[in-house]
Amino acid sequence: MQRKDLLTEPVKHFRINSKLSVNQLIQQFQNSGSFGAGRLAVACDIYEKMARDKDCTIFLGLAGALVPAGMRSLIADLIRGGLINVVVSTGANMVHDSIEALGGHHYKGHWLMDDHVLYRYHVYRIYDVLVPEEDFVNLDYKMTAIYDDIADQSKGKTLSSCDFARELGKRLEDPDSILRAAYESNVPVFLPAVRDSELGYVHFLHSTRRKLAKKPPLLLDAFSDVAEIIGICRKSKKMGMIILGGGVPRNTIQSAALATKSGLDYAVVITMDRAETGGLSGSTLEETVSWGKVKGQASTVTVYGDAMIIFPIMAASLIERLDKNHKRPRPKNMEKLA
Amino acid sequence: MQRKDLLTEPVKHFRINSKLSVNQLIQQFQNSGSFGAGRLAVACDIYEKMARDKDCTIFLGLAGALVPAGMRSLIADLIRGGLINVVVSTGANMVHDSIEALGGHHYKGHWLMDDHVLYRYHVYRIYDVLVPEEDFVNLDYKMTAIYDDIADQSKGKTLSSCDFARELGKRLEDPDSILRAAYESNVPVFLPAVRDSELGYVHFLHSTRRKLAKKPPLLLDAFSDVAEIIGICRKSKKMGMIILGGGVPRNTIQSAALATKSGLDYAVVITMDRAETGGLSGSTLEETVSWGKVKGQASTVTVYGDAMIIFPIMAASLIERLDKNHKRPRPKNMEKLA
Amino acid sequence: MQRKDLLTEPVKHFRINSKLSVNQLIQQFQNSGSFGAGRLAVACDIYEKMARDKDCTIFLGLAGALVPAGMRSLIADLIRGGLINVVVSTGANMVHDSIEALGGHHYKGHWLMDDHVLYRYHVYRIYDVLVPEEDFVNLDYKMTAIYDDIADQSKGKTLSSCDFARELGKRLEDPDSILRAAYESNVPVFLPAVRDSELGYVHFLHSTRRKLAKKPPLLLDAFSDVAEIIGICRKSKKMGMIILGGGVPRNTIQSAALATKSGLDYAVVITMDRAETGGLSGSTLEETVSWGKVKGQASTVTVYGDAMIIFPIMAASLIERLDKNHKRPRPKNMEKLA
Amino acid sequence: MQRKDLLTEPVKHFRINSKLSVNQLIQQFQNSGSFGAGRLAVACDIYEKMARDKDCTIFLGLAGALVPAGMRSLIADLIRGGLINVVVSTGANMVHDSIEALGGHHYKGHWLMDDHVLYRYHVYRIYDVLVPEEDFVNLDYKMTAIYDDIADQSKGKTLSSCDFARELGKRLEDPDSILRAAYESNVPVFLPAVRDSELGYVHFLHSTRRKLAKKPPLLLDAFSDVAEIIGICRKSKKMGMIILGGGVPRNTIQSAALATKSGLDYAVVITMDRAETGGLSGSTLEETVSWGKVKGQASTVTVYGDAMIIFPIMAASLIERLDKNHKRPRPKNMEKLA
Repeated sequence: MQRKDLLTEPVKHFRINSKLSVNQLIQQFQNSGSFGAGRLAVACDIYEKMARDKDCTIFLGLAGALVPAGMRSLIADLIRGGLINVVVSTGANMVHDSIEALGGHHYKGHWLMDDHVLYRYHVYRIYDVLVPEEDFVNLDYKMTAIYDDIADQSKGKTLSSCDFARELGKRLEDPDSILRAAYESNVPVFLPAVRDSELGYVHFLHSTRRKLAKKPPLLLDAFSDVAEIIGICRKSKKMGMIILGGGVPRNTIQSAALATKSGLDYAVVITMDRAETGGLSGSTLEETVSWGKVKGQASTVTVYGDAMIIFPIMAASLIERLDKNHKRPRPKNMEKLA
Repeated sequence: MQRKDLLTEPVKHFRINSKLSVNQLIQQFQNSGSFGAGRLAVACDIYEKMARDKDCTIFLGLAGALVPAGMRSLIADLIRGGLINVVVSTGANMVHDSIEALGGHHYKGHWLMDDHVLYRYHVYRIYDVLVPEEDFVNLDYKMTAIYDDIADQSKGKTLSSCDFARELGKRLEDPDSILRAAYESNVPVFLPAVRDSELGYVHFLHSTRRKLAKKPPLLLDAFSDVAEIIGICRKSKKMGMIILGGGVPRNTIQSAALATKSGLDYAVVITMDRAETGGLSGSTLEETVSWGKVKGQASTVTVYGDAMIIFPIMAASLIERLDKNHKRPRPKNMEKLA
Repeated sequence: MQRKDLLTEPVKHFRINSKLSVNQLIQQFQNSGSFGAGRLAVACDIYEKMARDKDCTIFLGLAGALVPAGMRSLIADLIRGGLINVVVSTGANMVHDSIEALGGHHYKGHWLMDDHVLYRYHVYRIYDVLVPEEDFVNLDYKMTAIYDDIADQSKGKTLSSCDFARELGKRLEDPDSILRAAYESNVPVFLPAVRDSELGYVHFLHSTRRKLAKKPPLLLDAFSDVAEIIGICRKSKKMGMIILGGGVPRNTIQSAALATKSGLDYAVVITMDRAETGGLSGSTLEETVSWGKVKGQASTVTVYGDAMIIFPIMAASLIERLDKNHKRPRPKNMEKLA
Repeated sequence: MQRKDLLTEPVKHFRINSKLSVNQLIQQFQNSGSFGAGRLAVACDIYEKMARDKDCTIFLGLAGALVPAGMRSLIADLIRGGLINVVVSTGANMVHDSIEALGGHHYKGHWLMDDHVLYRYHVYRIYDVLVPEEDFVNLDYKMTAIYDDIADQSKGKTLSSCDFARELGKRLEDPDSILRAAYESNVPVFLPAVRDSELGYVHFLHSTRRKLAKKPPLLLDAFSDVAEIIGICRKSKKMGMIILGGGVPRNTIQSAALATKSGLDYAVVITMDRAETGGLSGSTLEETVSWGKVKGQASTVTVYGDAMIIFPIMAASLIERLDKNHKRPRPKNMEKLA
């Protein structure tokens, strides 16, 4: 490398003197190309590449309280539009998806509310979002019945987390529900830690009741979705992931890609976690290359920011770039999935 | 409240003019009582209170790559000393515990190594720790045999994650192993997302082989440890948690405490994650009060720092405060825990 | 407060199904109103309120390498549009503004470049932005001449940092320069730590030369801008601040507002720094209320994010909300400001 | 490099089974050598190397509210012990040093206090530290008299920030004061942004009064300490820095080292700020190598943590490593420094 090769592309300074579309703003970010703005512009480009790559299975990893905070319809719409092909989520996000599907709501609150007062009022706080306890009680009640129904219909067959999510989606009739959209679109939803959420507590209620009724409970195998997600990765000619937050969903996707001895072709991580304490959520995409989870020549970027800001911008930029009424076809080899 | 009540305790400035023990340092931090130093001093006090409270079941939540980085023997020793009564861990930490128990090692590396080179050399990087691929291959190989053995012995019985961890501990003979120490000390280890780790991939190998051999695989129920951990919480007169990192382990412990309608009496969280993006790992202990996960009058503190620094300091301070050769008896009502 | 008062405004989930303008995106963020998205929507509202408040003097605090990364023209344009009335900046941002005004450039680089190679090539790195050494040498050379000229013209008079910035702006002819735009628009630029930048080193070169030539150097009084900024605050009927980063600029603005016994009416802080270690940059806007730096009933918000992403969004949203060709008149009582 | 060269040093796991001294704990951290623990062990080694290097001038950079939080006596003692040779500080830390020297106090508070109440009570909050307004009023009153005295004695001579700090130290008689200890030990204290603190507001009061009294005010030149700190760097055979926080002090030290065309030989940065948003405080020590601020072969480390925890540990470890009653001689060539 020669010195002049280092100094080829000057930073062009933003200029915002009239109404801009979201994607025009991203163009400005591309011009400057530095710090968070540069990373975000690259993230938008990578999502577009994934969307235009007919061979790419797009995985979405979902951790953190994104659904309570307002991300639900956007994800449901992206699933229906073919712009997400596989979802890997914490249990909690599907709990909150189900709460709304079953008639509950999340409410705007404040991060400095008095939690002792909220406790007395039976209102739960997630940073600045509130959920009334009765919406959880309602969930417990209706979801127990749904579990009964699934248990009755599955007749002793053990489900994977992915089967389970499909059975839930089948029974939730809200079109804005992620689980419903995934069910209708034949998009698999993996819940590798589903037990660690209200869906686990519902199982506790359900199985206690079933025991009294001398009926078998819904059975969920802890390991069987490993083979399923590896199967999807093997069928996929290309793989891309978009990670909101990190956690178990990120690790599950990366490990599945690794298990195929192939590695991801595209990766966008949106997080505020940092690398230095060694946790997976904050680990760099460079580090994943040493494992083979992400290909050495993959298109990758980490955007350090709040996913509630960053991901909608990426989605808005993508939708603007694609043709109107664009519906992305299912990636090749994924046609018969599920 | 009157103004004078606000201004009662002046900050006393540190003074370090001779050799200090770790706990003497913590006394200095208590004198100043501000920022991270004040939080750390409180954390040490809370751990001491838990340890001296005969009724308190002490839960340790373990997320992030703590075992690869050097935390293994310390945790094993604390388990044996009765200073940890229940472990809730990511799968990965137990994977790395097993790697060392089965003869492998972790190596000191650097956070700026070239990951393309590491990939070619089959060396995996976790921030500044390295693991050679062959130690994973060795794990896969030996662990598949262990799974075979567990499957053979359990004769079609479905295990919980807690049963499974006990079966692993029984078969790992390294005294420095967390799983072994827990097995020997009858300390339950919950692995609510065990599938999301190499232990999940091993199951994929194992079950593929068992299918060919027409033998049933090891069966792990995804939900049955929910009832088990709630059972422990119900038996406990008091509950305390120490959280390293956050993630699924933190949520699992908090949810179990909530399910008993009781709430934790003590809580120390060590994390670098932040609250504003709404993830569970960074959520404040104030917020947990609104849910009833932590009691309103509980002793709690969050220390913002690297658990690899903070937790050993807490442990060293505690060991110094306790009588020599102190072995904490199992908390009341937990005596028959299995 | 009654329970029902807590649960009044449900989170409305984002919906992005067609091309959106930046402000339409912000409307979506307002609908959800949670986490970073909610904070950003509030920040846009506050900037609009400031802009429409004829009495409000709008202070911009500028810390961090925003100018090298592409923020220069945007700030210059906002100054010309009357949407920023006073600038308080680190010296470094004005150094980089001057580098470009004097013909230099910043270049797109990468955060993982080999700094030993860059050192050998005389290329300086600021995260992922590069500056060739010769642009600094050119700055030193031309700026020394400018200092000579200022010293000659000021005839022994001691300048304030604000006078100094005006003299620089007068001599930089680039219309995209922040210093030039401020000079032309009669917007004061405070540089309370100007010595801590290449402008300090230039003074070292200049004063050494002047000594040899037996001429008095440019004299800058360290304290005289205190009275000037307090004077502006006293003349202002209302005060608002937008802080990019924090540091000395934030403290200078807040202290000036405090010195008037009045306090700011509007405050938006954009930062990634955190509160728990006690630094000013990460301190909460709540805390500033105890001092009287910000009024108890002020409109305030902190957005936790990268200023290179967040501030352009705020600016784009504001420009869209204002009438076309909007030029904000100078706030009342600031008309004769010089 | 061969593969085996990568895998030479296994992580040794911590073992804490009896009372440990602080330095014994650091030995454990060195054994593991990973994440924050590894970084901290390296930081302790580097501080020891600086202390044992007779040629090394040790610079301390002080930003963030360290003095209010309890760091005052420790720094004063290190100055007297020769373990810090030059201080570069924010104005605010010296303000709080002076508040205590003049009879005031800081008080332990809480980060969730009601700031509206504090405002009514005239109590200022710095995260979880409180300062009563009367201690600031007392400072204003007594410090104005000190400024008068300095102005009278300096007879129109313009001071540098370093002269000014010495004049303050001469007049503060508290042996625990940093300014006093520096004065007595002939350790220069640079205050490159002193105007941005209550010391700036005091000048406003003082100069207003002097104008009425038709007497010249204390005059502080904004630029003259540039030559002074460069002079110290040029005289130093070796240079090391310890940075608490970052900000202007870090930049001032690094720029001075650069101006000598030499670069620092040792560098320890303690911060929670992050690199990705491009600010100087969070910038990596790798990046400084591209500029020549830090030598390519220097001993350097960044510890990501709260300086109130990390720096006392480093100091305690160092004091334990040095001989009892160790007083470090002034570095060579710095003997006549004034």
